[in-house]
Amino acid sequence: MDFKTVLKRIVENVDGAIGAGVIGEDGIAIDQYSTKPDFDISAAGAEYSTIISSAKKASQSFGLGKTNEVLISTEKATMIMMVLGKSYFVTLALNLDGNLGRGRLELKKAIPELEKLL
Amino acid sequence: MDFKTVLKRIVENVDGAIGAGVIGEDGIAIDQYSTKPDFDISAAGAEYSTIISSAKKASQSFGLGKTNEVLISTEKATMIMMVLGKSYFVTLALNLDGNLGRGRLELKKAIPELEKLL
Repeated sequence: MDFKTVLKRIVENVDGAIGAGVIGEDGIAIDQYSTKPDFDISAAGAEYSTIISSAKKASQSFGLGKTNEVLISTEKATMIMMVLGKSYFVTLALNLDGNLGRGRLELKKAIPELEKLL
Repeated sequence: MDFKTVLKRIVENVDGAIGAGVIGEDGIAIDQYSTKPDFDISAAGAEYSTIISSAKKASQSFGLGKTNEVLISTEKATMIMMVLGKSYFVTLALNLDGNLGRGRLELKKAIPELEKLL
């Protein structure tokens, strides 16, 4: 099992999924799988990794403990990010009519597998 | 109708809601309503407002357009934040067993009312 196999399965199992990726908190993508050639998740790595780091810090200092998930909805897509290990995260991009609940479930299910590959 | 009335209604309509607040992107809370005296949403304003600003910037530069919502799940609570106008957001904090779907719905329904008060 490798990263791309797991990412491909996540994308194929979720209606409206555009792409998925494993990204380090330093902003560097480890691997990705996308259904659209112009949708490059690694290009988003640097920007979104900053948000994950800020969310971790904010939640710790507000007494909410460890951050598990950050979700961002925009007028064009929804990005779900779940923390992997200490300094990585897996992200899934969905169309606006994508199945958000299923996306979150597939990511949660994939976390143990992805963490084994880190 | 004032901010606190709307915030109180949101919290009372959502199972597992801890508190809600209207916060500026400068980190200053305008108003809040909480069911727990030790849960002070204004204290989180400065930290979480940075995340909203970063999410807006990341989504614009990644070509996803305007950001509507940011959700952060931690080991103790879930924070839902929805953008209000150009430089404010409304946030709702939920227990882990809180009704996330209902929370998002109540916030969405309240946005037009809250924007009128800005």
